[in-house]
Amino acid sequence: MSDSPVTTLSPDDSWAMLRANEFGRLAFHLADEVHITPINYAIDAQDRIVVRTAEGSKLLGLTMNADVAFEIDEFDDEEARSVVVRGRARTLDGHEADETEQLPLRPWVDTVKLNVVAITVDELTGRRFSLTRPWLHLRPHEV
Amino acid sequence: MSDSPVTTLSPDDSWAMLRANEFGRLAFHLADEVHITPINYAIDAQDRIVVRTAEGSKLLGLTMNADVAFEIDEFDDEEARSVVVRGRARTLDGHEADETEQLPLRPWVDTVKLNVVAITVDELTGRRFSLTRPWLHLRPHEV
Repeated sequence: MSDSPVTTLSPDDSWAMLRANEFGRLAFHLADEVHITPINYAIDAQDRIVVRTAEGSKLLGLTMNADVAFEIDEFDDEEARSVVVRGRARTLDGHEADETEQLPLRPWVDTVKLNVVAITVDELTGRRFSLTRPWLHLRPHEV
Repeated sequence: MSDSPVTTLSPDDSWAMLRANEFGRLAFHLADEVHITPINYAIDAQDRIVVRTAEGSKLLGLTMNADVAFEIDEFDDEEARSVVVRGRARTLDGHEADETEQLPLRPWVDTVKLNVVAITVDELTGRRFSLTRPWLHLRPHEV
């Protein structure tokens, strides 16, 4: 049993994990509510998280309130790793949107995706959780 | 190529997926910001999403603004499935907190988890995405 089952990932390791993945969850404001959606992403040359969204998506709430949070995670039997980003989202137009065409941004599905949104990373927090296989010491139900 | 690569999961299927998993991501307000955290959960007898949090966690923002969103997902080569919940969170005390002791709520790690939070589900949206193996038709980089 480790004294410190939760450890911090270095910024480099957190960025490496962000670059190695392509699927995360984006949390955003929609009026006074918080919403969350699974989404494909890519990191661009300016270290922004770039996503594409369908016209009319709830994600257009981003244009009203740029404050967002984004999460990715990976795990195996031994440990879980999670990277959480806080940042600001902005819709890209014209030339800026065209530049993202080169990104390996894979839509989950072949629906039309028209809007390009770039998220500037303000805070990046990576954590590693040593999994203690808790099911081995789950206490029996006492019903 | 399917005409409708995104289909809706029935409420029953969405609930079944919620009950079959134990790990999700919780998005919540913290002052005027949106935050997201990976978290273990269990569904209780009242169909609430129950989580445990450490004392002093950012999740205590929940006591200021109960509005939350929660997401789980699963995928294989063929398709991805995601369930998104919108709801209201409330910290449980005393007897109510004690009752959750029977839940198969596995902490990721053996740190002390003191606060019990129950999320009442107001909206449940399950979606299935037929994956089109998009890397097979990724256009070549034109750099």
